[in-house]
Amino acid sequence: MTSSTNMRLRLPLLCIILEVILIILFGTLVEYNDDTHAKLWNENRTDSDTRNDHENEFYYRYPSFQDVHVMIFVGFGFLMTFLQRYGFSSVGFNFLIAAFSLQWATLMQGFFHGLHHGKIHVGVTSMINADFCTGSVLISFGAVLGKTSPVQLLVMAIFEVTLFAVNEFILLSILGVNDAGGSMTIHTFGAYFGLVVTRVLYRPNLDKSKHRNSSVYHSDLFAMIGTIYLWMFWPSFNSAITNYGDPQHRTAMNTYYSLAACTLATFAFSALVNPEGKLDMVHIQNAALAGGVAVGTAGEMMLTAFGSMIVGFLAGTISVLGYKYLTPVLESKLKIQDTCGIHNLHGMPGVLGAVVGAVTAALASPDVYGHGLQRVFADVETGKWNPQSRGGFQAISLAVTLGMALFGGLITGFILKLPIYGAPPDTHCFEDGLYWEVPGEEEGHQELYEVATPNEVEKLSS
Amino acid sequence: MTSSTNMRLRLPLLCIILEVILIILFGTLVEYNDDTHAKLWNENRTDSDTRNDHENEFYYRYPSFQDVHVMIFVGFGFLMTFLQRYGFSSVGFNFLIAAFSLQWATLMQGFFHGLHHGKIHVGVTSMINADFCTGSVLISFGAVLGKTSPVQLLVMAIFEVTLFAVNEFILLSILGVNDAGGSMTIHTFGAYFGLVVTRVLYRPNLDKSKHRNSSVYHSDLFAMIGTIYLWMFWPSFNSAITNYGDPQHRTAMNTYYSLAACTLATFAFSALVNPEGKLDMVHIQNAALAGGVAVGTAGEMMLTAFGSMIVGFLAGTISVLGYKYLTPVLESKLKIQDTCGIHNLHGMPGVLGAVVGAVTAALASPDVYGHGLQRVFADVETGKWNPQSRGGFQAISLAVTLGMALFGGLITGFILKLPIYGAPPDTHCFEDGLYWEVPGEEEGHQELYEVATPNEVEKLSS
Amino acid sequence: MTSSTNMRLRLPLLCIILEVILIILFGTLVEYNDDTHAKLWNENRTDSDTRNDHENEFYYRYPSFQDVHVMIFVGFGFLMTFLQRYGFSSVGFNFLIAAFSLQWATLMQGFFHGLHHGKIHVGVTSMINADFCTGSVLISFGAVLGKTSPVQLLVMAIFEVTLFAVNEFILLSILGVNDAGGSMTIHTFGAYFGLVVTRVLYRPNLDKSKHRNSSVYHSDLFAMIGTIYLWMFWPSFNSAITNYGDPQHRTAMNTYYSLAACTLATFAFSALVNPEGKLDMVHIQNAALAGGVAVGTAGEMMLTAFGSMIVGFLAGTISVLGYKYLTPVLESKLKIQDTCGIHNLHGMPGVLGAVVGAVTAALASPDVYGHGLQRVFADVETGKWNPQSRGGFQAISLAVTLGMALFGGLITGFILKLPIYGAPPDTHCFEDGLYWEVPGEEEGHQELYEVATPNEVEKLSS
Repeated sequence: MTSSTNMRLRLPLLCIILEVILIILFGTLVEYNDDTHAKLWNENRTDSDTRNDHENEFYYRYPSFQDVHVMIFVGFGFLMTFLQRYGFSSVGFNFLIAAFSLQWATLMQGFFHGLHHGKIHVGVTSMINADFCTGSVLISFGAVLGKTSPVQLLVMAIFEVTLFAVNEFILLSILGVNDAGGSMTIHTFGAYFGLVVTRVLYRPNLDKSKHRNSSVYHSDLFAMIGTIYLWMFWPSFNSAITNYGDPQHRTAMNTYYSLAACTLATFAFSALVNPEGKLDMVHIQNAALAGGVAVGTAGEMMLTAFGSMIVGFLAGTISVLGYKYLTPVLESKLKIQDTCGIHNLHGMPGVLGAVVGAVTAALASPDVYGHGLQRVFADVETGKWNPQSRGGFQAISLAVTLGMALFGGLITGFILKLPIYGAPPDTHCFEDGLYWEVPGEEEGHQELYEVATPNEVEKLSS
Repeated sequence: MTSSTNMRLRLPLLCIILEVILIILFGTLVEYNDDTHAKLWNENRTDSDTRNDHENEFYYRYPSFQDVHVMIFVGFGFLMTFLQRYGFSSVGFNFLIAAFSLQWATLMQGFFHGLHHGKIHVGVTSMINADFCTGSVLISFGAVLGKTSPVQLLVMAIFEVTLFAVNEFILLSILGVNDAGGSMTIHTFGAYFGLVVTRVLYRPNLDKSKHRNSSVYHSDLFAMIGTIYLWMFWPSFNSAITNYGDPQHRTAMNTYYSLAACTLATFAFSALVNPEGKLDMVHIQNAALAGGVAVGTAGEMMLTAFGSMIVGFLAGTISVLGYKYLTPVLESKLKIQDTCGIHNLHGMPGVLGAVVGAVTAALASPDVYGHGLQRVFADVETGKWNPQSRGGFQAISLAVTLGMALFGGLITGFILKLPIYGAPPDTHCFEDGLYWEVPGEEEGHQELYEVATPNEVEKLSS
Repeated sequence: MTSSTNMRLRLPLLCIILEVILIILFGTLVEYNDDTHAKLWNENRTDSDTRNDHENEFYYRYPSFQDVHVMIFVGFGFLMTFLQRYGFSSVGFNFLIAAFSLQWATLMQGFFHGLHHGKIHVGVTSMINADFCTGSVLISFGAVLGKTSPVQLLVMAIFEVTLFAVNEFILLSILGVNDAGGSMTIHTFGAYFGLVVTRVLYRPNLDKSKHRNSSVYHSDLFAMIGTIYLWMFWPSFNSAITNYGDPQHRTAMNTYYSLAACTLATFAFSALVNPEGKLDMVHIQNAALAGGVAVGTAGEMMLTAFGSMIVGFLAGTISVLGYKYLTPVLESKLKIQDTCGIHNLHGMPGVLGAVVGAVTAALASPDVYGHGLQRVFADVETGKWNPQSRGGFQAISLAVTLGMALFGGLITGFILKLPIYGAPPDTHCFEDGLYWEVPGEEEGHQELYEVATPNEVEKLSS
């Protein structure tokens, strides 16, 4: 068994080949955009007297980018450390596949979103978009957490990033809909993609590892680091690529209120569904974030704090109820083993967000938005504007996203099922020792009693 | 006993009722302000040719807001995880009462600080102010940490937020004083409010839980996460709502130097007061932050780096000495059981900050401030300006704040004493297991020896 | 032994004396600069109609400053918590020497980089520069981690900050070279300075503490907090003090791509050099960051994403190989005991960064940079511009830096060898209990078995 999960050749080969391909493609296809190019930025500056350094998109977007970056690497990474013996893999594989995905996403998104004379132009906005696409892969990672090798995860990322870019292109460029915070493109897509992948990779004997598929006291505290960072920076996430000025400001604020209301709903229902009225860390760590997902589409619209709070409250409620009542059914009836419960945090709240976005768009009017209408809804200027049809396109986008995710997850799942990636055996899921050098226990303890290290457990049980 | 602390109905009911009330009030009272409203922002843009998106307050304030947000949720939340078995409650209840308080504070502050045709206008500045008010509640939480149920904490927040808004209104709007970083409004108010509450809730038999009222190795490291984030972002806290330009810049820098000097004082006195010269984590985690509290009022003034460092050094010194010599006396003589020692971190340094603010204001002159005078002291323009009287008003504000805090804490304390909130019994304070599902120990360990989980301990001892 | 490591008088005396000296020097030498001074900022505003608050350097630099600040205090502090019983010291001493160094650096850098009528002018840029200099000291701290008393560390900081300022002055002011992200001034200098210090302090019997010179499971997770924050915010670090506009934007992006490529190289080579193909936390925690170091000089130039990724990939590769093959040789042959492996994270990648910077500068041309040339290379305007000679000066700067670091480290090492600082004995290195009050184990455990606390271990072994 140890030999079959040995990464010594597989992982280095895949990483090096992928990075070499990336470097070659970047060398041939990628260029600085106007705001990052020494020549172009300063030429443009001369042409226009009023343009100044502070108008460089860097100053509008970089603080948001950094917040998004924290969500991707600390937020997602630590959120998944709740498992007792899978912290190295949670943070580490999150780190690896995110570092790969953001490079691959730059190329895929650049390719679909418009080449400039055959070149992809990059700057802080492309960095944010690449991080967004990476977020989608990390959501899917949550479904298969503990049951996949790093090689499998990289292969999944290759396919998911590609299909993400296709879906995003259909939604934003062809259908021309709004989805600044990615309720559809990021959350719904990532969740259902991951759920189908984990369904295809179904392990009937996973209960052999169930003693490790739970948290310990300190692992739950590490996971709260991830939760709190995601929660705090979600306003930056949803507003990171909206238009400058009022849309960015409004989106951040709507998300702030949605999350606050969601948190109260989460605590309320977590206590309510427990026989002893005790709060469950799984709910607090995850469901409290559903409010950010659910205003990912409508956040930039005139949703109002009032509307945002209603949406957030609903999102928290369905998320807790999903963890309590739906997840066990998904596993027992549909054979979907969803380690992190991404269906409750990203799936249902993502669909809710898409519906809220469609309704809010359908209700939009020049009376409410004034001259700001065209800053939120791009096709107003082109004369195609019709709130009802816009609402309809938003709804169609949800269907397209679900279709792409299910189709993509199915294909990817079967590719990941090939027995060549060194996936962990059923007996050793949720165990860092398979892919990591895990240190022994603390000195003081070891003198007093002997603890079997994961490596030893492995040997004993093989 | 278990039945009396059962939260199954109390907590959900309270959360849902509060959130429904909040949603209704937001629906009837809250509107986007000029900088977040699609119509108003773009109308105003047309009126003035020079106004541009980068002048939206979002770009001046949002990075500061995010830093403040991190202080509230990560800073306060993790600072209180130092207790060995109270990490879930520290981070979790911090999360809950902060999410509630920021909504309630938006309404209370909006109501007192000026309605616009009967409506409360919201934007990034109101978000920062709401987070500030929340900070005050979290300071009080530190005094009663481990001895209160989440229902009690929410009830405390309802009253404290309301009185905070009244006190802030008296200070900033009626007396017209300066307190941008909240030495008085946030720290002094929160500290003495919390101290009176914990005095009223005095538990003569708290020593039954004293074996849990201390840290373990890793809980101290989690707490350092909170400390360091508070320390790093305090310059953003104090400068978040000062005027644009030089005041914001100067405040951040003064706070930076005050904290640096405070840290050296903290290490010095922590070693000095220990017989073996060993450093105490309690001091490092808390007293090193007192320098931020103590320049909360004067930070925006021309305090200079020199002045800031003196203030910071003093603050660190009195804070360590307070932990060592005053806290035990407060408990034994005055029956004030102050779990986190908020009197040393927020109480005394807050009063010091108020005094420093009064003196610095009294010494202000047009010679030093030039045209910048009216950007720091609001009533210069109105012709009422007189440095000495300004200094006097600052001093009066401290007295008003202390009075409001003592009065408010007394009322709130007696309300919280009613035996209806499911407060923990003396034997089970500082214990997560009462309100949380707490996971068992790590797999590898459990095979070797049996550890009693908190739930089991509870059963055994009941 | 306990008496010789007792800090009761030494540490307080040194801290208080240093802080008093700092306060006096700040009082006599330091003034607000134009952007932080109430009078000067508002005078200048009147002189020029177009100047506005948003042009205050605060809004260009403060978000970058805060990211750098997080790297210094959380990044460096937690990265070093990987040791099983040295977390308090790692975060705590990091905190102490950083708080001291940033004050001392403000004076030293202000003195060398140009006095204004005998005064040092401070603002957000001087704060970033002070944090940068502090970073250099913290790199050296990594080499001597676990083997030094806090008094020794403060004394080291006094000398290192001073020599850092001299070296920086020679490079930036006399030779006029580029090094915005500090490949030379910060990383190369800090690394070789620290390596020489630890060489001079060589302990032949350090293996008496080797059972503590390793990680445990949760200490590795704490260290990953440090790693991830350093990784995420490195784009802000390298771009923090470049010119406004395109240089700042471009530097951040180049660093982002370099780090992403570096991460894939790190995972690849970490698995490759392990017989079982298992990943090593030491590599992931450290080598994945080498990509940020290696574009510290060239990041602001037109390196392109392509070039950045090649540099990052190389940096990750040499860093992992260094940990695996070079570090053991350095210890056994050259008697350099490098606790954190700073030679692999800062030393070699720093030199690589200097070489890349020299080559990229030598290849610069007006064709590529256009009017932006003078915004990157300062002496273009003065007519001295010649890419080849610029490349040569960059190379000379590396030699100067290495010379200064070796010389400074040698002197400082011998000063630190004096037996007056309370350094830990060989048997008690890597042990918090020597300088900290360390709490006992968790309640539940203690009832079941007795664990010797570090203090008791100390007594037993003395």
